[in-house]
Amino acid sequence: MDEQAKKKTLRMVPYGLYVVGVRRKDVTSLEEDVNAIIGSWVTQTSFDPPMLVACLKKDSSAWHHVTESGVFTLNVLGAGQKALASKFLKKTMTVHAKSDAEGTMEGVPFRLEEKTRCPVFPDIPAWVACEVVHSYDGENDHTVFVARVVDAGVHHEGDLAPLSHEETGWTYAG
Amino acid sequence: MDEQAKKKTLRMVPYGLYVVGVRRKDVTSLEEDVNAIIGSWVTQTSFDPPMLVACLKKDSSAWHHVTESGVFTLNVLGAGQKALASKFLKKTMTVHAKSDAEGTMEGVPFRLEEKTRCPVFPDIPAWVACEVVHSYDGENDHTVFVARVVDAGVHHEGDLAPLSHEETGWTYAG
Repeated sequence: MDEQAKKKTLRMVPYGLYVVGVRRKDVTSLEEDVNAIIGSWVTQTSFDPPMLVACLKKDSSAWHHVTESGVFTLNVLGAGQKALASKFLKKTMTVHAKSDAEGTMEGVPFRLEEKTRCPVFPDIPAWVACEVVHSYDGENDHTVFVARVVDAGVHHEGDLAPLSHEETGWTYAG
Repeated sequence: MDEQAKKKTLRMVPYGLYVVGVRRKDVTSLEEDVNAIIGSWVTQTSFDPPMLVACLKKDSSAWHHVTESGVFTLNVLGAGQKALASKFLKKTMTVHAKSDAEGTMEGVPFRLEEKTRCPVFPDIPAWVACEVVHSYDGENDHTVFVARVVDAGVHHEGDLAPLSHEETGWTYAG
């Protein structure tokens, strides 16, 4: 295989940037240990029912949480939110949160989404809440999570242009 | 679920446009029935080994071909190629091709890629050849094909900016 051609071709695929909100499996029904990480490798896979694919790096803390709990939120970063995205690039601390409370993660306010009890960030323009229905762990270094969209919300109406890799200058493909 | 919020959020996810080159299962080792269709729902899922996810609408002719043969090419359309993309939007005719020959599909020249024997289009800037290692058919209206990238090529060096949904004005998400 022509490695350079492979890299160039795979880097043509456009990606958005997402704060993937995750939690540990039930501690109690009223409390959660939650976390969040930047994700890029996402595509829709069904209109009806609404479903998507999200790929998370194996053995990352977010991966462990999703593997355990089977739920996550996908918070879709908007154009101009590179600085906010940067806060979730490195491994973040797992935060203990009460289900009826709000908190902050890396200084960014969040609340727990009702159906998944994963974090949703009011500063990020839009989100979907997802329940994993299938996962694939083969030779791939990121697990393929196939998930049903069970709820959604928009915090900021208007343009809703996404934050792109192009805008950030970051690359996560090839 | 808030249907409008779901639609708006899922439409923030950026997508490229691909001509997915497919073939029927072996007719003989020297001849193929090949076809191609526009795809959008693609994401990488592994750096090492290089793998990607491509989602194809169930019961489409391309879906039948990939389900049968387990191989496809992903031809990544470049900026400015909306007119070329349009030729593959509707159902195209399956074309009979000899493995060592070149042909045309909807007037667009192609050749058969060596490893997968699926069509590759010299007018489209870059391609990867893929072998399916896993597929998921749940409630999703598009099958999730997880595939290993087995070869790649770049026809046109230079910028390699992809054709985006934004440029075309088309939407395939929500």
